[in-house]
Amino acid sequence: MKQTTAIYPGSFDPLTNGHLDIIRRASRLFDKLIVTISTNSAKKTLFTHEERAALVREACSDIPNIEVEYFSGLLINYVKQSNARTIIRGLRAVTDFEYEFAMALMNKHLAADIETVFLATSEGYSFVSSSMVKEVFQLGGDVSDKVPPCVLKALKNMYFPES
Amino acid sequence: MKQTTAIYPGSFDPLTNGHLDIIRRASRLFDKLIVTISTNSAKKTLFTHEERAALVREACSDIPNIEVEYFSGLLINYVKQSNARTIIRGLRAVTDFEYEFAMALMNKHLAADIETVFLATSEGYSFVSSSMVKEVFQLGGDVSDKVPPCVLKALKNMYFPES
Amino acid sequence: MKQTTAIYPGSFDPLTNGHLDIIRRASRLFDKLIVTISTNSAKKTLFTHEERAALVREACSDIPNIEVEYFSGLLINYVKQSNARTIIRGLRAVTDFEYEFAMALMNKHLAADIETVFLATSEGYSFVSSSMVKEVFQLGGDVSDKVPPCVLKALKNMYFPES
Amino acid sequence: MKQTTAIYPGSFDPLTNGHLDIIRRASRLFDKLIVTISTNSAKKTLFTHEERAALVREACSDIPNIEVEYFSGLLINYVKQSNARTIIRGLRAVTDFEYEFAMALMNKHLAADIETVFLATSEGYSFVSSSMVKEVFQLGGDVSDKVPPCVLKALKNMYFPES
Amino acid sequence: MKQTTAIYPGSFDPLTNGHLDIIRRASRLFDKLIVTISTNSAKKTLFTHEERAALVREACSDIPNIEVEYFSGLLINYVKQSNARTIIRGLRAVTDFEYEFAMALMNKHLAADIETVFLATSEGYSFVSSSMVKEVFQLGGDVSDKVPPCVLKALKNMYFPES
Amino acid sequence: MKQTTAIYPGSFDPLTNGHLDIIRRASRLFDKLIVTISTNSAKKTLFTHEERAALVREACSDIPNIEVEYFSGLLINYVKQSNARTIIRGLRAVTDFEYEFAMALMNKHLAADIETVFLATSEGYSFVSSSMVKEVFQLGGDVSDKVPPCVLKALKNMYFPES
Repeated sequence: MKQTTAIYPGSFDPLTNGHLDIIRRASRLFDKLIVTISTNSAKKTLFTHEERAALVREACSDIPNIEVEYFSGLLINYVKQSNARTIIRGLRAVTDFEYEFAMALMNKHLAADIETVFLATSEGYSFVSSSMVKEVFQLGGDVSDKVPPCVLKALKNMYFPES
Repeated sequence: MKQTTAIYPGSFDPLTNGHLDIIRRASRLFDKLIVTISTNSAKKTLFTHEERAALVREACSDIPNIEVEYFSGLLINYVKQSNARTIIRGLRAVTDFEYEFAMALMNKHLAADIETVFLATSEGYSFVSSSMVKEVFQLGGDVSDKVPPCVLKALKNMYFPES
Repeated sequence: MKQTTAIYPGSFDPLTNGHLDIIRRASRLFDKLIVTISTNSAKKTLFTHEERAALVREACSDIPNIEVEYFSGLLINYVKQSNARTIIRGLRAVTDFEYEFAMALMNKHLAADIETVFLATSEGYSFVSSSMVKEVFQLGGDVSDKVPPCVLKALKNMYFPES
Repeated sequence: MKQTTAIYPGSFDPLTNGHLDIIRRASRLFDKLIVTISTNSAKKTLFTHEERAALVREACSDIPNIEVEYFSGLLINYVKQSNARTIIRGLRAVTDFEYEFAMALMNKHLAADIETVFLATSEGYSFVSSSMVKEVFQLGGDVSDKVPPCVLKALKNMYFPES
Repeated sequence: MKQTTAIYPGSFDPLTNGHLDIIRRASRLFDKLIVTISTNSAKKTLFTHEERAALVREACSDIPNIEVEYFSGLLINYVKQSNARTIIRGLRAVTDFEYEFAMALMNKHLAADIETVFLATSEGYSFVSSSMVKEVFQLGGDVSDKVPPCVLKALKNMYFPES
Repeated sequence: MKQTTAIYPGSFDPLTNGHLDIIRRASRLFDKLIVTISTNSAKKTLFTHEERAALVREACSDIPNIEVEYFSGLLINYVKQSNARTIIRGLRAVTDFEYEFAMALMNKHLAADIETVFLATSEGYSFVSSSMVKEVFQLGGDVSDKVPPCVLKALKNMYFPES
């Protein structure tokens, strides 16, 4: 029987419904899906990695076969040490295909037996990104159908703690 | 245990080393990989579908978990009737990302529970296509490291039967 | 007061819900919207231009300020002879931006006082095109939420007259 | 009669001839065009928003139907409060189509009755941006035909006040 | 001293001002520039290869260091037999970068010592192609500043011999 | 005889095998190739410009007709003052074509008699950039076949001086 563990890496700062769509679909393709949260200190994040992990866990509580972990350093080294041989990435029609492709080729070069597989982001999420969600929410825009309820609450606590 | 059958559809007119690279890598991700050859009569092909299937079988003879089949009509109907829930497509850096994306969204619309997963074509194959192979070979160019040996022989028989 | 007549040209072979979305939105931006159907004989169409016009008229019967007309020859000459100074085009995320851009620049060159304005196709229609609708329907796929009901009926009569 | 007020938002730091081309063409399509200058404090600008507005007013002094205003916060909230239902954006062949498309979809999501319409930047301006103008001018390059005369003078005062 | 012969291949059916711009600029970079006209019989052309060559010769009569030749079959074989080691291609902002890139890589593969060098098409020609010129002229559009005078005359003789 | 001096500008922070491939190929096209290292102080670099120059010189010691120089300010001014009339740029399939194109048009505008010529990056280097090399190496990834040996040694001294 083939290994069916896959890794879905990212910053998840915070989790969006676009991420959640990829998690849900990837969880059906593999026996286990590890959502791996980057803790690289160089990149300033809105939420701590513990907070980001808690939000992923809460939003995915109905998906039995996922685990949430952390990684720092080179993703491919983390994958090599895990039991997984597959990296999952979402591709948005309206986004950075070229960057993702370059990363996949670089990772293929660093570890030939590890595959990156891409899923096409579902329509409705093709313009949703963590950074756009933060920018729009901070300026008072409505993102309630772009993030899970627990993330919406966390954004309110972060940006408008008084209200 | 998750189903791990995937379908890799195409014309394969003829099989290239780029196709073979995707087949080899996808066969490691799934328990079974079905290479499905389109027999839609509207599209004129160089090789008959039986010839195309024979070339795939010969080139993949060392890969135990693949099967070669035919389909006509709508791909998604074929997939629904099979045991597979996953379609494999290769993405070339130098090619038709947008078309593939539109097809994946259309197929998602036609059958929500079937996933299209993309693999990035390995460097060295990013400019190889069946049509370019045929065009270059026909004009006398060397394609010996772009197709498997059995395909090279078949191209010779087709275009230069006398030599 | 500014002129607010615009022209939305195309083959509409047949009208899709993506076209209809553009028509509806453009009709709110201008006093009058002329949907102009190409009758260039070189391009083979599934429906005659009279049939295509009838389908547009039926699907748009609730939009008071549209007219349906025909044009042949160079679009820009047709626009010059009309009262309009604006051409409407829909842009799909998953499609031919570059071709549309080249046409807009060419038309600007041919008639400097006529503007092409682009609307972004709404999500849900970004992969819908007349040709994909025809291809999928012909092979037995469901396109009922991709075209208006009258178009669906016309497709059935065309491809499956017996059923 | 339809409303024919449109809003052209941006940083205009400073106005280029590419912006001016869009302003001039959009002013012919609508009864009134509001050029709206972002005052978001997070983004560091070369000119203050008052200076940027003054340069737009001076360069557009021959266009009767434009107004220059400011906005901060979310653009779409500003548009909702105004009388306008249309946002104007220029698209350069050599630039960020995907970002503009994502913004248009996001704005459509935030306010379904407000349309973003795109104009193709005229040839000769397709590589002109405020940031490239500043970078080239600062290093001593000639930008005299890429910005209006008043902007050129303002750039000289800013970067080379002595000369 | 380095060899400075380059080859600019194409169909030139007919020569446009965009081609002429590339020819003029490339002729300054090399001692000799060979404009090579494809005679592949599979592709239907408006003008015979002799007519296309005559038009190039007439339009380039003031450029001393160019020659006009024919080739059929594989371009790279033609280049190998010539004294040149460089292929010239124009890149339009609004066009087929990916196809050109794939061809360059394929040609690099077929002959490692032959280089393809790209020049960026000047603004004003980025939307000009032989096929668009023919389509627009045939429908009565003005292409007089998109092609050299001799080509304009030839188009008139071809499409409107009576007038 | 034509001038055959060309300039290959960049940050080279540090030199990669992708750069080296372009240098080697460009050096065969021109009598002299000047590799010009930017010393603009605004951009923070890992290596000083003297270090970057030393690495280029060491890696290219077998190429007789190259020179290594520095420039600050506007590239095009530097080129004008030199004997060269040609700028070399590498184009990666997986990268910033649009930015390079805009720069080439801007430089054409600033100095009409200076040409930018593009070479297609060879397969195997299409995802290699100085910044990705630094990021991967710093995190412990293997870049030994992505940079020349002298650069690998310099990276070790910079990031892991103890080991």
